[in-house]
Amino acid sequence: MLTLSKKAQSMPYSPIRKLIPLSDETAKKGIKIYRLNMGQPDVDSPKVALDAVRENNLTILSYPNSLGELELREGMVEYYRKIGINVDKSCINVTHGGSEALQIAISAICDPDDEIIVFEPFYTNYNTFSIQFDAKLVPVTTSIENGFALPPMSEVEKVITPKTKAILICNPANPTGKLYSKQDVLDLCSIAKKHDIFIIADEVYREFCYTDEPHFSFMQVPDMDDNIILIDSVSKRYSMCGARVGFIVSRNKELMPVVLKYAQARLCCAKLGQIAAIAALKTPQEYFDNVKAEYLRRRQILVDGLNKIEGIVCPMPLGAFYAAVQLPVDDAEKFCRWLLTEFNYENQTVMFAPMAGFYVTPGMGKNQARFAYVLKEEDLKAALVVLEKALKAYPGRTIK
Amino acid sequence: MLTLSKKAQSMPYSPIRKLIPLSDETAKKGIKIYRLNMGQPDVDSPKVALDAVRENNLTILSYPNSLGELELREGMVEYYRKIGINVDKSCINVTHGGSEALQIAISAICDPDDEIIVFEPFYTNYNTFSIQFDAKLVPVTTSIENGFALPPMSEVEKVITPKTKAILICNPANPTGKLYSKQDVLDLCSIAKKHDIFIIADEVYREFCYTDEPHFSFMQVPDMDDNIILIDSVSKRYSMCGARVGFIVSRNKELMPVVLKYAQARLCCAKLGQIAAIAALKTPQEYFDNVKAEYLRRRQILVDGLNKIEGIVCPMPLGAFYAAVQLPVDDAEKFCRWLLTEFNYENQTVMFAPMAGFYVTPGMGKNQARFAYVLKEEDLKAALVVLEKALKAYPGRTIK
Repeated sequence: MLTLSKKAQSMPYSPIRKLIPLSDETAKKGIKIYRLNMGQPDVDSPKVALDAVRENNLTILSYPNSLGELELREGMVEYYRKIGINVDKSCINVTHGGSEALQIAISAICDPDDEIIVFEPFYTNYNTFSIQFDAKLVPVTTSIENGFALPPMSEVEKVITPKTKAILICNPANPTGKLYSKQDVLDLCSIAKKHDIFIIADEVYREFCYTDEPHFSFMQVPDMDDNIILIDSVSKRYSMCGARVGFIVSRNKELMPVVLKYAQARLCCAKLGQIAAIAALKTPQEYFDNVKAEYLRRRQILVDGLNKIEGIVCPMPLGAFYAAVQLPVDDAEKFCRWLLTEFNYENQTVMFAPMAGFYVTPGMGKNQARFAYVLKEEDLKAALVVLEKALKAYPGRTIK
Repeated sequence: MLTLSKKAQSMPYSPIRKLIPLSDETAKKGIKIYRLNMGQPDVDSPKVALDAVRENNLTILSYPNSLGELELREGMVEYYRKIGINVDKSCINVTHGGSEALQIAISAICDPDDEIIVFEPFYTNYNTFSIQFDAKLVPVTTSIENGFALPPMSEVEKVITPKTKAILICNPANPTGKLYSKQDVLDLCSIAKKHDIFIIADEVYREFCYTDEPHFSFMQVPDMDDNIILIDSVSKRYSMCGARVGFIVSRNKELMPVVLKYAQARLCCAKLGQIAAIAALKTPQEYFDNVKAEYLRRRQILVDGLNKIEGIVCPMPLGAFYAAVQLPVDDAEKFCRWLLTEFNYENQTVMFAPMAGFYVTPGMGKNQARFAYVLKEEDLKAALVVLEKALKAYPGRTIK
């Protein structure tokens, strides 16, 4: 029998994307959809980056270095220096977005059946990438009731086995918007050190923190050079998701040559995205200030609005651009399908990411949803009105 | 102990790339190196493609569709139609070069310890990609003496086991320049069908065939819809290796939805490369005619020149832009190191890819080398002079 691999067959549909074909049908009917399901900001990319692409005078689009363009790696050294992370360019390999950085990190440390600890809910593709490399995600569940706070470290240690290779954590977190504190970071480092495991630190939302404290990176913890693997990306920082430029960063001197072998196997990263990323390093501070101010306003509108709707619980997210929400419904995915197929309010409806797919523990997150506040204020306000109307009409609502 | 995965530790250095750091040192000393080691053509990319990138008026570099841009997939349907391959757009997913297409194909059909049959010597990264997914390459050895012809199919059938998932073949072939005939293709399809295994057909060098017959694709064989997975790329066709745009193409209706899940996990392919690839579809025929004429001249110069050097055996390659050569030396890698560190002729030296890394059978290909004829005629001529001088001086030569 001609069959696909077991892992391919067990690959779940992305919970963020599986309703998109349905939404396209809905849009064709002329219904306006407020798409809060994906982390695709509507913010412009820095002009300096787009102009650099337009002004390129290449005659051959040839292979860049497998490590990434030297100018980009040197620029990143300087970027990191400014935010208190000291690395040299030998610690940086450019990747096809944070996604490929994660794939390489997992494959570089995990053989089949090795385990990676994650705090659920987590970014859903941690699961797909683990399945690709036959690694196993071991969840430590966090709860919306206490704002997705980390459990005591003793709870984390309970799930460590001889197969545990890493803790994989996103800070600020997708999908919860949770911003882990310096103490959280130190606590996790301490158990990683004690048990000789890696920390894969996904910090792609670093620029989106809404407290007065600067973001504290796992890379700033002393004496953790061998343990920390940083995942980074230009996608969110510069609203350049389509550039496909990310980074795997580590001071581990055994790891980085292996990363390079992986990088050499797939030859190189896209040249044009790297041109944009190099130029983006010169983005004026004003750009970031404006973007942050915009997201602060959006967050306020969305979170206040959600909490005003009866039965919705939405902790205030301190980072990224997501709000994780408990909905007064039987099943958030069913609700989302219903929104796309049976409901509209004045020819408008709303789309979000049902959160069950952000858990590996079956049954968890069934009534939770992730809202990405990536739309303009007036659209967010309109989406809130539609959502409130929908919750009053939805047959599976749990508040009557 | 904090350790990397066994697979990461067993990852070989790319034989094409491992001498590059050494060559950079050599170049710094002011020695001119004729770099025939890599398949990086010096041919310009089509102007129409580069202009499209320069003329883009994007304001956000946002995520393209995980399937790839619709216009690119529709353009590829038309491209395939013209060369006698009938597929619709549901059969095509855009990838980060042929490399990612291979990674997805292997992972979609192989669980750990599953086997893939390859004809050695083969493109070296078939090995690294298999290691990444814990699959095992099973070699069927071909010989330079008969121009790397396929063995009788009975020899191939001998290595088929219950773990065999696919035959992976490159046509025209890297590193040998071998062009498999229509009969070869039909023979392989016949055993794939008989044993229910996939054929992963890497046809990225399709435009580089030097016979009067048109290239015959595995996709043109009737009744093989479920078995054939085509790997394609714009890298060689348009000299756009740095665009990172490739394709995984299959009529297998179970496979393509899984491919999309893999594609969704890594979100999308680079937007800018896809802009170039869409425009490249409009490349005038004259471009291809000129490129082909150029490679025909280069091939003649290189192959004639090599065969005139005492002790060298070089079958005439009928495809791609590589010549696989037997050298009168103890060890081609040692010889290449020596060329880069101890030898120069009038301040010039030569670099090629030692071929042992293109085999998985230990000891094979030790005195073989791959020469990529990617340089201009005068450079190829100069390289041949240097090579002949070097072979007279090299202490490990086997002809005195």
